Amino acid sequence: MANCLVAQSGGPTAVINASLAGVIRANQLNPVYDRVFGGIHGIEGVLADQLFDLTDLSGHEIDLLKQTPSSALGTCRYKLKRGNDTDFKRLIEVMDAHDIEVMFYIGGNDSMDTVDALSEWAAANGVAKRFVGIPKTVDNDLVPVDHCPGFPSAAKLAAQVTHATRMDYDAYTRAEVFVLETMGRDAGWLAASCCLSGDVDLLVLPEVDFDKEAFLAEVQKKMDEKNECYIVVSEGAHYADGTYLSAGDSANDGFAHAVLGGAALTLKQMIIDAGIAPRGVVQDLSRAARSSNFAQSLVDVTEAYELGMSAHMRSADGVFTGQVVGVRREMRDGAYNAKFFAGPASEFANHVKHFPTEWILPNYQGITQEAYDYLAPLVEGEPKLIYENGLPATIKAFNRR
Amino acid sequence: MANCLVAQSGGPTAVINASLAGVIRANQLNPVYDRVFGGIHGIEGVLADQLFDLTDLSGHEIDLLKQTPSSALGTCRYKLKRGNDTDFKRLIEVMDAHDIEVMFYIGGNDSMDTVDALSEWAAANGVAKRFVGIPKTVDNDLVPVDHCPGFPSAAKLAAQVTHATRMDYDAYTRAEVFVLETMGRDAGWLAASCCLSGDVDLLVLPEVDFDKEAFLAEVQKKMDEKNECYIVVSEGAHYADGTYLSAGDSANDGFAHAVLGGAALTLKQMIIDAGIAPRGVVQDLSRAARSSNFAQSLVDVTEAYELGMSAHMRSADGVFTGQVVGVRREMRDGAYNAKFFAGPASEFANHVKHFPTEWILPNYQGITQEAYDYLAPLVEGEPKLIYENGLPATIKAFNRR
Repeated sequence: MANCLVAQSGGPTAVINASLAGVIRANQLNPVYDRVFGGIHGIEGVLADQLFDLTDLSGHEIDLLKQTPSSALGTCRYKLKRGNDTDFKRLIEVMDAHDIEVMFYIGGNDSMDTVDALSEWAAANGVAKRFVGIPKTVDNDLVPVDHCPGFPSAAKLAAQVTHATRMDYDAYTRAEVFVLETMGRDAGWLAASCCLSGDVDLLVLPEVDFDKEAFLAEVQKKMDEKNECYIVVSEGAHYADGTYLSAGDSANDGFAHAVLGGAALTLKQMIIDAGIAPRGVVQDLSRAARSSNFAQSLVDVTEAYELGMSAHMRSADGVFTGQVVGVRREMRDGAYNAKFFAGPASEFANHVKHFPTEWILPNYQGITQEAYDYLAPLVEGEPKLIYENGLPATIKAFNRR
Repeated sequence: MANCLVAQSGGPTAVINASLAGVIRANQLNPVYDRVFGGIHGIEGVLADQLFDLTDLSGHEIDLLKQTPSSALGTCRYKLKRGNDTDFKRLIEVMDAHDIEVMFYIGGNDSMDTVDALSEWAAANGVAKRFVGIPKTVDNDLVPVDHCPGFPSAAKLAAQVTHATRMDYDAYTRAEVFVLETMGRDAGWLAASCCLSGDVDLLVLPEVDFDKEAFLAEVQKKMDEKNECYIVVSEGAHYADGTYLSAGDSANDGFAHAVLGGAALTLKQMIIDAGIAPRGVVQDLSRAARSSNFAQSLVDVTEAYELGMSAHMRSADGVFTGQVVGVRREMRDGAYNAKFFAGPASEFANHVKHFPTEWILPNYQGITQEAYDYLAPLVEGEPKLIYENGLPATIKAFNRR
């Protein structure tokens, strides 16, 4: 009986380990593979023959793994690209050495491209290895899925922090703006999800070129109306010429300022410099947005786990390869339902799904009802977490053993 | 039958509303006062006669209030100071107009000084009004209590984010430092509590003058040892001459840099400039540290609620005034137990309890076992939160109605 391999790639999420747990558990329920190996630090460790045997994790360890944030196998930024025969051959060598027939790769766009390239290469070279993708990314920018595992939990954390800090901000009477910044690269999904709290006055997304004058006019209007303005900005927000806000306010004032370190800091300073408010508070969610297991969405962690199981189960037919599993949305009597499917990796790779511009209200006023309807079911439910010493318990990362 | 008044002052916390809920509920269990009024925006609103009748909140509303972060009555930075007869007389006028006999004031050092000053003034001027303090502050800098309500939940959130972001950081192989910053003003309690996660390599507290050379040597040592260094810094960390790290790195390099906005950003840049690591990640907990109801400690929210009840119940004797309620620690068979007491407000006011220097390990190596033993019981337990639409439900703030 052959073995399988699972590896994680790219930025961690709060539920990427749930997909790993799903693969391991599926193989315990139906031992299609003799051993389930984990690749340490993604493809980088696999090429260096660093594997960890995950086959016989206990039920308790699997429960802990599901609620352990970040990539428990470690991750890397090394990308296997099509045309790289040396790496491809080395990978097959390592797989052969451990009698590995199938590799499950949990990752984003680039990783799905790797799955596509590897399966193509194997077919072209008569290599009997199979490659299966399991999607994840807090950026939620993959097509053709409804959403990506990891995003809903990040969205839930972002909305929770938005509501909590908005209430904190609302407790004061003094004139002050509040600017919260989220990750998300060039897609505004995570920033938009802050609106689920109902607390966002102005929303600045990468999908709309930033217009300083128009934005400041809206801030002025909010301050005039109610002496407060709670702003959410995506790290990838940029001017029409492509300059990121995080590069500082140099693009529009004609001379270079020091890099301020973030889009939120730039907006705060811009508002103060314009004399609209005398002070501001910045809250940058930074890394906490994506690895906060204490804010896991039950929908998210369940789907991530089930996608891991689905990938394993589909691979049991002996021919499944070059495919990625994913979730589409069904509405059943008005309620959200996840529909699992698999599609060619090429359809997942190298595209970026932006936040739809038709879901963005003009003048930074937030998102449409359609956007709310899309986001709301994803953050529903809270898993019952196991706590130890007052903190959500985690499994010791395999790359640290 | 006379009425009572409750107001909140200073920075919000995740459980300051639980103390408010405790006063309201105690009066429902034993209606010593005909009405329980809330002062809107602390003393500022009270002087402007802005009151909200809280007497008859439903049980469900009280449950929601206990899990609502920030100050549900609103807060202010206006301080009533001894010697300010105009304000004192105006306050009595408002209290008289609403037949208010007792004022409960939930706040930190300054507010406890106000309780002391008002009760002294009332006695000296033959005014039959009473003033009772209920402590709160995430800074945990009040004497003579074991700890302040609000701090344990902030500590729990800080430790959770530390653990989650440490696991995120650990997933990578590249050379990079991570610097997390916490609130806490001139006391290092909150930063120190990040160590509960077991994940902190170096800890920079305000209680020890910052020594740039010694610190960088320790960072270098960690990077040499294991190619990583996770640092926690308190916003109040400063050089021997009192200059805050958040003022930038100007103190030690002899010329003025731009203000970088935070101690963490300063440390990150200092490490990069010294060539010890090529890059760094900054995570500033900022306001999220103090208002995160999704990370309430059960010990904290319970004690905050019970302190509100205790204040109300003690006031029922008709003479209790100029006193503050608080919690001392008892160990019972090795386990933490809260012992409630009341003491003169003067003992709570205008002192700052720093993190004990004997609990700080040399060379930024973290905290002693004694410090862990102090902190650990405070973050224990999680209340069962009521969720609505995927977010912890909250009551609409009274200053927004």
